[in-house]
Amino acid sequence: MLTAKLVDSIWATRKADSLNGFKFMQAEVIGGSTTGQRLVVVDTIGAGIGDKVIVCTGSAARKLLGNDEIPVDAAVVGIIDEDCNV
Amino acid sequence: MLTAKLVDSIWATRKADSLNGFKFMQAEVIGGSTTGQRLVVVDTIGAGIGDKVIVCTGSAARKLLGNDEIPVDAAVVGIIDEDCNV
Amino acid sequence: MLTAKLVDSIWATRKADSLNGFKFMQAEVIGGSTTGQRLVVVDTIGAGIGDKVIVCTGSAARKLLGNDEIPVDAAVVGIIDEDCNV
Amino acid sequence: MLTAKLVDSIWATRKADSLNGFKFMQAEVIGGSTTGQRLVVVDTIGAGIGDKVIVCTGSAARKLLGNDEIPVDAAVVGIIDEDCNV
Amino acid sequence: MLTAKLVDSIWATRKADSLNGFKFMQAEVIGGSTTGQRLVVVDTIGAGIGDKVIVCTGSAARKLLGNDEIPVDAAVVGIIDEDCNV
Repeated sequence: MLTAKLVDSIWATRKADSLNGFKFMQAEVIGGSTTGQRLVVVDTIGAGIGDKVIVCTGSAARKLLGNDEIPVDAAVVGIIDEDCNV
Repeated sequence: MLTAKLVDSIWATRKADSLNGFKFMQAEVIGGSTTGQRLVVVDTIGAGIGDKVIVCTGSAARKLLGNDEIPVDAAVVGIIDEDCNV
Repeated sequence: MLTAKLVDSIWATRKADSLNGFKFMQAEVIGGSTTGQRLVVVDTIGAGIGDKVIVCTGSAARKLLGNDEIPVDAAVVGIIDEDCNV
Repeated sequence: MLTAKLVDSIWATRKADSLNGFKFMQAEVIGGSTTGQRLVVVDTIGAGIGDKVIVCTGSAARKLLGNDEIPVDAAVVGIIDEDCNV
Repeated sequence: MLTAKLVDSIWATRKADSLNGFKFMQAEVIGGSTTGQRLVVVDTIGAGIGDKVIVCTGSAARKLLGNDEIPVDAAVVGIIDEDCNV
């Protein structure tokens, strides 16, 4: 998994039907030499802009959604505690 | 997922039979430290050159196609709204 | 797999239900040109901060857990022996 | 997928039994910021040294082979048309 | 797949039970712009330190082992012939 900061929402009115209703956000990797790398993540646990989160990628993202047919490859799996040194 | 701009079409007359009929495009990653990385994506939702899109990679791309037997590892899943800050 | 050093614990009180009870740690890649890259790993074999470990990524991480439904993409699979040249 | 140029053949007399009969080639990524990255690909569609090709990676490569048990993670899926701007 | 040189053995006395009996080695990518990147690979075909090998990564590594439950994501699939230009 990666540590990332949610930096913005992202909107795509035209998208795959199976993605309707999902919330997409831009995340920026924090920590280590890949800091500053960006990816688009799905959030289902109520994270918001500015939160530091743990992101899983690849097929793991669909495990979070509990549906292996959704075309998603990155999802927020946890919100990092504020007193955590990340 | 990644944010990318569609920069060109790409044509391969000789290709795997299972890819016949699919539209391939060159996409260039935008945003973050991987800006400028290129990949070839399949588009099934009507995106065109110049559009900013969300691209999913890996097995997720086949979920979009609804057919796990197609040898594809990247696909456009959404067209980013024009007023979106990407 | 990657060689990495466990550098810290990481806490996420709000997280996916299926992740309750798992221990998450921050790992930093050691050795080779990706030294300094960071990732979040699950540990189930009793590794601690400062240990050098072997980390598997992707779907392999769920093989370690013996449960393919957990949204995890990186896990400690071994603790590197102290007399090993890594 | 990636755009790459086939730069050489590669021979491995000692290899996994399941790989007997496959043609392996060295490919070099062209286009974008990962230009110059190398990978080894399987070719089953008759590509040759000097050809510019589309390469799929990961589990998609086994979809091309039509056999999910072959230990392969990259394959040529198409030969880019010569008049194509890549 | 990647071309890599096996540079050392790696030992982990404490490891996942399912990894007992496997030989782990450190490999360093050779060729192209990712030269010098390191990864840990499983060898089952008798490769040794100093050999140049072809490494498959991801789920393909488990195809080599013929057991999809082993938590492994990289394996030697072939030893590159000595007269091969790599």
